[in-house]
Amino acid sequence: MSDVRFRKLALFGVGLIGGSFALALKRAGAVAHVVGVGRTQANLARAIELDVIDEIAADAASALPGADLVLVAVPVQQTKQVLQQIAGHLEAGAAVTDGGSTKRDVVAAAREGLGAKLAQFVPAHPIAGAEHSGVEAAKADLYRSRTVVITPIVETSAEVRSRVAQAWLACGAHLVEMSPERHDAVLSAISHLPHALAFALVDMIARRTDAAELFSFAGAGFRDFTRIASSSPEMWRDICLANRDQLLEEIRDYREELALLEDHLQRGDGAALERMFETARTARNAWLRAVKS
Amino acid sequence: MSDVRFRKLALFGVGLIGGSFALALKRAGAVAHVVGVGRTQANLARAIELDVIDEIAADAASALPGADLVLVAVPVQQTKQVLQQIAGHLEAGAAVTDGGSTKRDVVAAAREGLGAKLAQFVPAHPIAGAEHSGVEAAKADLYRSRTVVITPIVETSAEVRSRVAQAWLACGAHLVEMSPERHDAVLSAISHLPHALAFALVDMIARRTDAAELFSFAGAGFRDFTRIASSSPEMWRDICLANRDQLLEEIRDYREELALLEDHLQRGDGAALERMFETARTARNAWLRAVKS
Repeated sequence: MSDVRFRKLALFGVGLIGGSFALALKRAGAVAHVVGVGRTQANLARAIELDVIDEIAADAASALPGADLVLVAVPVQQTKQVLQQIAGHLEAGAAVTDGGSTKRDVVAAAREGLGAKLAQFVPAHPIAGAEHSGVEAAKADLYRSRTVVITPIVETSAEVRSRVAQAWLACGAHLVEMSPERHDAVLSAISHLPHALAFALVDMIARRTDAAELFSFAGAGFRDFTRIASSSPEMWRDICLANRDQLLEEIRDYREELALLEDHLQRGDGAALERMFETARTARNAWLRAVKS
Repeated sequence: MSDVRFRKLALFGVGLIGGSFALALKRAGAVAHVVGVGRTQANLARAIELDVIDEIAADAASALPGADLVLVAVPVQQTKQVLQQIAGHLEAGAAVTDGGSTKRDVVAAAREGLGAKLAQFVPAHPIAGAEHSGVEAAKADLYRSRTVVITPIVETSAEVRSRVAQAWLACGAHLVEMSPERHDAVLSAISHLPHALAFALVDMIARRTDAAELFSFAGAGFRDFTRIASSSPEMWRDICLANRDQLLEEIRDYREELALLEDHLQRGDGAALERMFETARTARNAWLRAVKS
């Protein structure tokens, strides 16, 4: 049982990220009541059935009275609009956080959208997710032992920052604090680029005339390499656009790496190829050991 | 219990591929005795302990008397040398197959290495594997429900072809027959390219000065995308060199795909990005459904 307790969580966006946040806080006994606002009525009805939310609200005006915690978990392009809707109805002292995968754009959206309520907002990015989306995929342990990056802005109140940190900690996550700029640079290399590369490979093969034959010989390596290419196209469109300067830089670097690989192949330089592969394997295995310990 | 029965299997290369073949045939009751030839004594001793092989032989001359089935499961660059060693000692009627991931080079190696015994050879590629290598990783069900591609050559005797097919079928695999050329083209797109891309991404990140920080934010998507970058560098060096003309063509195509992606990003064309991602997701999910059914 968590010793932090929220009276009412208002969830804007009841999908994998929002739904898992609600379930985790409920399981920890950290929230008494959850109200959900979303685009599709069927999804909200399913969220009630699954006990992810306790109540459906039509809009911010009806969702926010009494709410001391707010999570915005919508595709990042919609964040600004949602924050604008929230701004007029947010109670004093209520803490707002989000689950967006990019942070510079979310901070900019908050500056524009929240106005005088900016001090009540703590941008956050839980590094957890799955290729499945929607409330059906939500689970109480999605954030357990995962990293949540928070990127507070100078205006954020210390009290609100602490309340938001308590909420994510109650979900079982550990917190890392960094600037929005550094967050977007790090994530573009380690997350956004791999997603883009996986989508690109499957798209390239799918558009060939012999795609069906090619897929029929795909094995376990292909399945895992492309798992993230089953992620939500809408969500990843928004992430790629929001972080496009960083992502473009990463793609340019990666094309240089491919040019290096092509050069090794063209020269038949087995030693250079093996060094490249060995560097990769050693680094990945060291990372896996670090994660497990 | 299989109704096919081999007296003695001679295994050249006692690792994941060879060891799993031996275990599968033993479990099916399809082989009476297995002898192993390999480079490292400790690995061969472990293979005895694990009941993968029953006997260690120093060379082809001592391994082949009495053997009616031979599997060559060494990195593809060593295939020719092993086939040359086998040629002088192979019994009439014995069937030889291999487990190499490329087939044009294996066929060329067989033409040069086997001489008059060429009719006794059936090139094969079991599309199964793991990022783990060595006999410790061998398992009896590695080939169950997996595809084994065989690429018979005109010289192959029908009798030998049938015996080799029976052996792979006894491992639980299903067989697909195609030309060595088509095999290498298909696999370069669906397997060799993804492996090269995964190795390249991890190598690129590992060589950066902030690699440790970047890795510390890697999540489940990165883990799965890069799983194949933990594969054997020696084995993949050989595969990439053996199939380098096809692989270079795939890398060129992939760089064009990346250029397309960069163009969408530069123009901020969200609709084009979403179409690309949606094409990928739809194709991948359709493939997953086909595999499961």
